Amino acid sequence: MSESAVTTAMLVDFDKADPTDRSLLGGKGAGLAHMISMGLDVPPGFTVTTHACREFMRTGEIPEGLWNDVDDAVTRLEGKLGRAFGGGPAPLLVSVRSGAVHSMPGMMDTVLNLGLNSTLVKVVADWAGDERFAYSAYRRFIQMYSNVVLGLEMAPFERALARAKSDAGAGDDTELSTSDLRRLVAEYEGIVRGQGAKLPEDPTEQLRAAITAVFRSWENDRAVVYRRRHGIPDDLGTAANVQMMVFGDLGPTSGTGVCFTRDPSTGERTPYGDYLPQAQGEDVVAGIRDTLTLDDLSSRHPDLHTELLETMTRLEQSTRDMADIEFTIERNKLWILQTRAGKRTAAAAVRIAIDMVDEGLISTEDAVLRVDPAQLEQLERPRLQSRVDVDPVTTGIGASPGAAQGRVTFDPGRAVTMAADGTDVILVSPETTPDDIHGMYAARGILTSRGGKTSHAAVVARGEGKPAVTGASGLLVDEEAATGHIGDLTIHEGDEITIDGTTGSVYLGLLPLIEPRPTPELERLLNWADEIRQIGVRANADTGADAAKARAAGAEGIGLARTEHMFMGERLGIVQRLILADSDRDRSAALRELSTQQIGDFEGLLEAMDGLPVVVRLLDPPLHEFLPDRFELEAEIQQKVLKNKPVADLQHMASRVKEYEEDNPMLGLRGVRLGLVVSELYEMQTKAAVTAVIRRLDAGGDPHLELMIPLVSTVEELRRMRDMIRRVIADSGRDLHIPVGTMIELPRAALTAGEIAGVAEFFSFGTNDLTQMTYGLSRDDAGRFLGMYLKEGILTSDPFETIDVAGVGRLIQLAAKEGREANPALQLGVCGEHGGDPATIAFCRDVGLDYVSCSTPRIHVARLAAAQAEIRRIRQSE
Amino acid sequence: MSESAVTTAMLVDFDKADPTDRSLLGGKGAGLAHMISMGLDVPPGFTVTTHACREFMRTGEIPEGLWNDVDDAVTRLEGKLGRAFGGGPAPLLVSVRSGAVHSMPGMMDTVLNLGLNSTLVKVVADWAGDERFAYSAYRRFIQMYSNVVLGLEMAPFERALARAKSDAGAGDDTELSTSDLRRLVAEYEGIVRGQGAKLPEDPTEQLRAAITAVFRSWENDRAVVYRRRHGIPDDLGTAANVQMMVFGDLGPTSGTGVCFTRDPSTGERTPYGDYLPQAQGEDVVAGIRDTLTLDDLSSRHPDLHTELLETMTRLEQSTRDMADIEFTIERNKLWILQTRAGKRTAAAAVRIAIDMVDEGLISTEDAVLRVDPAQLEQLERPRLQSRVDVDPVTTGIGASPGAAQGRVTFDPGRAVTMAADGTDVILVSPETTPDDIHGMYAARGILTSRGGKTSHAAVVARGEGKPAVTGASGLLVDEEAATGHIGDLTIHEGDEITIDGTTGSVYLGLLPLIEPRPTPELERLLNWADEIRQIGVRANADTGADAAKARAAGAEGIGLARTEHMFMGERLGIVQRLILADSDRDRSAALRELSTQQIGDFEGLLEAMDGLPVVVRLLDPPLHEFLPDRFELEAEIQQKVLKNKPVADLQHMASRVKEYEEDNPMLGLRGVRLGLVVSELYEMQTKAAVTAVIRRLDAGGDPHLELMIPLVSTVEELRRMRDMIRRVIADSGRDLHIPVGTMIELPRAALTAGEIAGVAEFFSFGTNDLTQMTYGLSRDDAGRFLGMYLKEGILTSDPFETIDVAGVGRLIQLAAKEGREANPALQLGVCGEHGGDPATIAFCRDVGLDYVSCSTPRIHVARLAAAQAEIRRIRQSE
Repeated sequence: MSESAVTTAMLVDFDKADPTDRSLLGGKGAGLAHMISMGLDVPPGFTVTTHACREFMRTGEIPEGLWNDVDDAVTRLEGKLGRAFGGGPAPLLVSVRSGAVHSMPGMMDTVLNLGLNSTLVKVVADWAGDERFAYSAYRRFIQMYSNVVLGLEMAPFERALARAKSDAGAGDDTELSTSDLRRLVAEYEGIVRGQGAKLPEDPTEQLRAAITAVFRSWENDRAVVYRRRHGIPDDLGTAANVQMMVFGDLGPTSGTGVCFTRDPSTGERTPYGDYLPQAQGEDVVAGIRDTLTLDDLSSRHPDLHTELLETMTRLEQSTRDMADIEFTIERNKLWILQTRAGKRTAAAAVRIAIDMVDEGLISTEDAVLRVDPAQLEQLERPRLQSRVDVDPVTTGIGASPGAAQGRVTFDPGRAVTMAADGTDVILVSPETTPDDIHGMYAARGILTSRGGKTSHAAVVARGEGKPAVTGASGLLVDEEAATGHIGDLTIHEGDEITIDGTTGSVYLGLLPLIEPRPTPELERLLNWADEIRQIGVRANADTGADAAKARAAGAEGIGLARTEHMFMGERLGIVQRLILADSDRDRSAALRELSTQQIGDFEGLLEAMDGLPVVVRLLDPPLHEFLPDRFELEAEIQQKVLKNKPVADLQHMASRVKEYEEDNPMLGLRGVRLGLVVSELYEMQTKAAVTAVIRRLDAGGDPHLELMIPLVSTVEELRRMRDMIRRVIADSGRDLHIPVGTMIELPRAALTAGEIAGVAEFFSFGTNDLTQMTYGLSRDDAGRFLGMYLKEGILTSDPFETIDVAGVGRLIQLAAKEGREANPALQLGVCGEHGGDPATIAFCRDVGLDYVSCSTPRIHVARLAAAQAEIRRIRQSE
Repeated sequence: MSESAVTTAMLVDFDKADPTDRSLLGGKGAGLAHMISMGLDVPPGFTVTTHACREFMRTGEIPEGLWNDVDDAVTRLEGKLGRAFGGGPAPLLVSVRSGAVHSMPGMMDTVLNLGLNSTLVKVVADWAGDERFAYSAYRRFIQMYSNVVLGLEMAPFERALARAKSDAGAGDDTELSTSDLRRLVAEYEGIVRGQGAKLPEDPTEQLRAAITAVFRSWENDRAVVYRRRHGIPDDLGTAANVQMMVFGDLGPTSGTGVCFTRDPSTGERTPYGDYLPQAQGEDVVAGIRDTLTLDDLSSRHPDLHTELLETMTRLEQSTRDMADIEFTIERNKLWILQTRAGKRTAAAAVRIAIDMVDEGLISTEDAVLRVDPAQLEQLERPRLQSRVDVDPVTTGIGASPGAAQGRVTFDPGRAVTMAADGTDVILVSPETTPDDIHGMYAARGILTSRGGKTSHAAVVARGEGKPAVTGASGLLVDEEAATGHIGDLTIHEGDEITIDGTTGSVYLGLLPLIEPRPTPELERLLNWADEIRQIGVRANADTGADAAKARAAGAEGIGLARTEHMFMGERLGIVQRLILADSDRDRSAALRELSTQQIGDFEGLLEAMDGLPVVVRLLDPPLHEFLPDRFELEAEIQQKVLKNKPVADLQHMASRVKEYEEDNPMLGLRGVRLGLVVSELYEMQTKAAVTAVIRRLDAGGDPHLELMIPLVSTVEELRRMRDMIRRVIADSGRDLHIPVGTMIELPRAALTAGEIAGVAEFFSFGTNDLTQMTYGLSRDDAGRFLGMYLKEGILTSDPFETIDVAGVGRLIQLAAKEGREANPALQLGVCGEHGGDPATIAFCRDVGLDYVSCSTPRIHVARLAAAQAEIRRIRQSE
């Protein structure tokens, strides 16, 4: 951020502030300034700006003159209101709240009733004519201040409050008497002293400490983590808002509430709100008392209800967005305390965006920008009802959103047989490996006790659109005994569980799920997006059924069909026979069987995507991924030996497994290397592909097959494969054009893209591997430190989720440029996890790629994100 | 090669050719032209040029007009000699030999006596007055022509010859009578027909076929492989030389020989030669008869001996190099058939270069260019005597040159204890892993049955200057039984063997070795090199003793001290205690122990390199490399369980091993990642380094320590480590400057070098890892296809031996440029296997690096290669 672009005021009164200057005022301050400019009844106050905070962060000290400015602002406030801060007869109490540009959990939030002390509590009692109210306010103040400013342990306060309620036989704290509260206050003061802290009596000192605490909270661990996660720059700083207190707990004509201008769950154009009589704002959010509805408010305060609804309408019209509003009624007067864009579900976001276009409030481009693409994935999966009354038995990381339920199995093979019997299965495992993939395909959802959002389980699950909870460290899996332990609880095979891949929660039993349904609103929004976007969207899909689903979701072809996935599941046996074959005859037989299957695979894909491009990647992973785990095999042999059973076959298998074992399989014999060493494999696949094309042509179809060679590091590898493919096509006797291209997934391929483009008709950037190689970082192993890296800010984002522009992106840009220079007809795309990431899509558009390819559940995301990237490009260049 | 630079004549007579046009004439043709221009008696003839060969390769057909040119040239030859090709009374026979610019094994070599047929054999008999000679010449012709032109099996010919000799009771073929030879010729003709071939009677047809065969042999598999290995371009082509035959077997006044102008073994200025009376040239080389010396020649033909010595002197003077000369005496007349620069041992190369400077023949720069740097390594190691009378029991790949001998062990741990007892050990293993490294250090040499020149064993051995034979596939190692099997032969632990890492041969018993000795000649040569070279040479050395050796070899500092090597051997126990520690207390104790050791390590290095820079790299490999193999551990547990022995400790170890296990350790938790996760480790190392510097300073030394952080992928990693190091230095209370730098070994580090250079004071390019990541190719796993890639020409050189300029080199160049732009004071070096490779050194000089760092045995190589690179740079720019 350049210094000149920033207003440098350190303090601004709400009624003097420019509501559009969010970067100076923060979101909360700007909202307050906006409402005051609209003439709404907002308690007056002032904003200590983000600039002051930034100065504090830069120098480590409160900027010179700031406390004078604060004193002056308080004096102005006193004058305007005719009240006294730290005095009587009409005492001024204030709230102090943080307000960054982006709202952030983890930062110091709020201190209410600031300005009270052991003397002034009596002045307040006199002013309000309500001693109980004064002591209640003082109690709250001590607790909040102790918590957020002094940083004290809350448990002793909570225990004292609970004891006071139980001593008084009170259900909640509104039932405590004045004397109960007096005693409690005395006890609180003792707790503060007991923790070696001091509650300042001087209100000015309180205010300064609270503002300093707001500034400090910007650098809280939790706030830092949140910023990393959401890509918010560290140098923005936060504002602190100091505002006159109004009291929702000042007798039966007072109350407080939160409302939304539209329904935040469904998006319906119906105002929605919660109201609590005789309460302060925090009570609504904390959910400690049952709230009333807006209708209830209407019957209690019909005029104020009307006024509130009018205010809601005006706020929505002026901000052109659904607003989330906090209000307080103090002795029959309505005050508006805060407004912001309301958080909403994906469904509501879509509905509101569409409706607002129809209402003439916003343009279609605005509507497209209004929906967070990442949220759209929610719409693709069944999910738990928003209110779940059951407690989770454990919680891990929400690694792949949506909910899934079924019977537990700990064995991937069992998962396959159970699923074949029609049982819904949840595969539970310490962690998954490529060996487990058949079980993962068969399962409804995946639960692991290890690994994070980038673990194998997480990546496969997201790719497959299956819910997954990973890293549920409270769960101990005993694979041998086929049991899982969560504390004292034991889970057996066949037990029913529900997992929520959105929140990471794990429940016993089958909880009610909400099934996804495509809405016409979503269709309209995505059609607008399609009109705007300039980059194509294809799907990563491996079967005809997948491809059909992807096409229905709007995919314009297949960017990546992984043939290794076709080799899994029930065909694994054939592949193993191929690998274990000791004679050419056995090998040929296995190849023939696979060939028949592959032809069918390819026909299915081409039929589902008739008229659209289908990029088939020849076999990529190392052969040993198709073989069983050596440890398990050795254990099995041990067992059989002990029982005097024959083990020759197993030993043969074990020796073959050992032979194919690699120290670093990611850097080993796979992709085109395997294609060159075991040349029959790629040749079989090519022949199958050509046969499929011919069958589709003969059936009157319009197949557009393209063949892609993985893991090319030198043009010569590609040239040989292209020559082989040409030979196979020539042998077919048909005049076919099947474009041949390559993955650019090794740094060397990117660095020599000019050469490679001389042979390739298209490039597809395999950003997963390219990221692994560029960082020298295995996705499977990164979990052990990537979390720490993100938390500590060594990395600002997970490079496996969002493209690393400086490193990986630079290679992509270079390869795109030099590839196109060498071959202007070169088609450029990206496939892999990144293909569905909005920031990556924007990057791909910027460097001139033709399309992105992503998993089917992310097609909608990609369509929307591509349009947003386009709109932002245009708006930035204007 | 640009077309314009190439002369395009298709045929040139020897006496019309320009001797300096080697690229057109090939080496042999140029040598013949040169000798004729000197007035030597060379049998006349002509060269069919490389241009004609290139045309043939390009079009697949003999260029138009070439056969006419050949016919004309033959006519000219007939006219000059008064003989007739294919006629009498004085028949013209010719030899046809290939002659590429670089001599290459595997290409068609020679057909002698061409122009003979069943009729002409009688004309030759009449002309020579020697019927036996004529049939002997015809027999040789049929055999050679059948072999190299017709490509027939040689075994039937050899069998027929052997039978004829045994029937006649002849010791060698000179004892066969005319009638024996007649019968043999008839039998040969039958063999040719029997193999379905036809020996042309027409001499012109013979000549054309022989020339075509020479051209074709350019693309022989063996020739192609040789070119790959030696970096010879495929498009040079070869010439074919057609030359009048002279006969060394024409009676007792004839003979043939080979001589060198100086001794090719020692370089002494003494002519050396072998002579055979009554023989053709091939008999000398084949070694089927015992040769005579030049002194013997002197007594038989004193005049010719004098003439030959004069010719030798003239040839050496004119070519300014030691010459290898073929000559023939035909009936008392001396003919010179061929000359070329003589092959010589490394010792001879150095001696000759030095002597020729002293003799005023060549400049010091020429002398520096005369010695092949790769050869110098030979001088560093003991080696086998050049003639070994014992047959090897098996042969593998000569992976690290030199010979080693000692007692066999199959267990790295045993190797350590045996070596501690003073036994010389050869470690024998299917293949080695980082777990075996303590055993490899302890062993004199390493023998593996798997892996190639790039295997772990090979790389470690070369790094350590230890001889190694890898991939001895005839050897089956049974580790459990601690035996090795070669066919029926069983090798037990303790058996004595000798391995030759130069040739790959393995012998039983202790063969006599020649110990290396440094020569004053080598010192002089390297001093000249030092004066010329512009790039520094440092050593990779991990101990004070290594460093002292490196300094003695001329290293100007240490470019890489690998602290992990310091953790191996007897300290492995402490490291394992550190990793397995369950309490902070245990961990601290282990760290303290290691710290004491490390201080000593660093002091030793700094003392040995006092006044020179010492770059210490903090711990690089993943922790699990310090732990035992999980399979072995599980097996041990199984064994103990069966015997009812306690296994808790082992199980603890196994669980920790499993915990640290990684799918792709090369891409896992290592280097700076480990340094950030287990922060005590790097801190301990830094404190030890600082303490060592202070101790050296206090002892009056001049320590120049630099600290290097490995595996940096983002500047933030380096920044944190630099800050930690600064903190440790500040805590020491001394005013020290210890430069902090980083390895550039991940593509991302190279791609973001500008940023990183803002924090780093130096870069060291870790070309091993950079090559692995750029290619996505693990050095440990590459053996399974890299050989095939090189053989098939998919790769033209092994990227782990010679820098891949297009990919890895591009990253280095980019990082050097952008690093220096961001930080002009940045020091740039390269370390790793490539640091000692001549081609890589030239590349490093070109991109402006400050130094290369290589293993001690390659210091001489690097000094020489750096000077050669400089001279070539200067000469090219002139």
